[in-house]
Amino acid sequence: MAKPKALLFDVQGTTTDFHSTVCEEAARLSAGRHPDVDWSDVVTRWRASYFTALDNAPSKGAWVSVSSVYRRVLDAVLDECAATGISAAERDELTLAWQRLKPWPDTAPGLTRLKTAFTVATLSNADVSTVINISKRAQLPWDAIFAAEMAGVFKPDPAVYRMAATYLGLQPAEIMMVASHKYDIRAAARLGFRTAFIARPLEFGVGGAVDVAYEDDFDVNAADICDLAAQLGC
Amino acid sequence: MAKPKALLFDVQGTTTDFHSTVCEEAARLSAGRHPDVDWSDVVTRWRASYFTALDNAPSKGAWVSVSSVYRRVLDAVLDECAATGISAAERDELTLAWQRLKPWPDTAPGLTRLKTAFTVATLSNADVSTVINISKRAQLPWDAIFAAEMAGVFKPDPAVYRMAATYLGLQPAEIMMVASHKYDIRAAARLGFRTAFIARPLEFGVGGAVDVAYEDDFDVNAADICDLAAQLGC
Repeated sequence: MAKPKALLFDVQGTTTDFHSTVCEEAARLSAGRHPDVDWSDVVTRWRASYFTALDNAPSKGAWVSVSSVYRRVLDAVLDECAATGISAAERDELTLAWQRLKPWPDTAPGLTRLKTAFTVATLSNADVSTVINISKRAQLPWDAIFAAEMAGVFKPDPAVYRMAATYLGLQPAEIMMVASHKYDIRAAARLGFRTAFIARPLEFGVGGAVDVAYEDDFDVNAADICDLAAQLGC
Repeated sequence: MAKPKALLFDVQGTTTDFHSTVCEEAARLSAGRHPDVDWSDVVTRWRASYFTALDNAPSKGAWVSVSSVYRRVLDAVLDECAATGISAAERDELTLAWQRLKPWPDTAPGLTRLKTAFTVATLSNADVSTVINISKRAQLPWDAIFAAEMAGVFKPDPAVYRMAATYLGLQPAEIMMVASHKYDIRAAARLGFRTAFIARPLEFGVGGAVDVAYEDDFDVNAADICDLAAQLGC
């Protein structure tokens, strides 16, 4: 494989640990008032509801912020999980946890190594401002922030990947899409991008249902971002 | 003045020294073959021709890369300056100097200080890929890259500043536009942005015609980016 010139990273799940971040924030906010609620289950359902909402988003039109999507689907999730008595203000505050996602331990050191040889940028469905907030708190050394918001549609719409290639001034074959979600890197592969799969067994917490199987159709399968750096010679 | 949350920086001239970078590259490429050519004059005229070309660019439509604009106007500039015998390949290579602009000495340390308290991002008329290339070589620690290319029109079109505000998720009054060019920060000011003027007396080389007068209508007038950091309490 010819080496890529730039690497594009998914953010929620691939470079950050949303599950533990949001679970911890929920536990902090609930402060023992909801001992029967399984917050891990809440977060897993919340994330699934977010994906369903994105799937049903209009294919083009006024941009709907991802923060507003998370907030909008939260009420139904809390109802499903019998997490009652959580005020609107507390729900707003809980939603802010998605702006403060903690990186996986390998993310900053791995990106720092990769940045010496490649352009490293985000390609996230989260809003630009959310990706900036997360990255700034986590001190992630991106060369650029690209987000679905800049294309007006969400991944896996081809327009999102093409937007990043245009802004990078590169051909798809010169760019590697890196994600822990196979639908994401396969969408990029269909456009000619190189692909790297990052296994994130804890994406949905301990015992969560997650597909971490390596696949032959990816250019790289990696245990984490430091492993990706090593495989790319950094 | 309430403190801003984010600072947007012009790149060519404000954070980077295009004059000495491009002059040095021209001198290197010509390798003594053109002893009579005043390269400082060539670069000053080249930059002026670029501005004229941007002024005459269609207000909306297919994006024209800034690199291609620099290349297209170069032939006439070299003719004006009687810099003959420079091959097409050499002209292409000389144009690449605009991708390698060196930062002013205060840029990286000043940005590093400002980044501790504010979101720091570019807002450049140069292509996204050019801003990334320059920033990566110069190790400028941006939180985000915004460029006119993302709005499809050049500064000082209001759409460029509004694009950045939208992506930052901030109101204009929460954002400070920082530039050494008064037309740029005044265009932002008309939309409600805060403003910082950076004096760059050497923007067009020693003795170059440049307006470095401080003005009362700017929120901050600064000698360089470290001075801006100091005035903003960093």
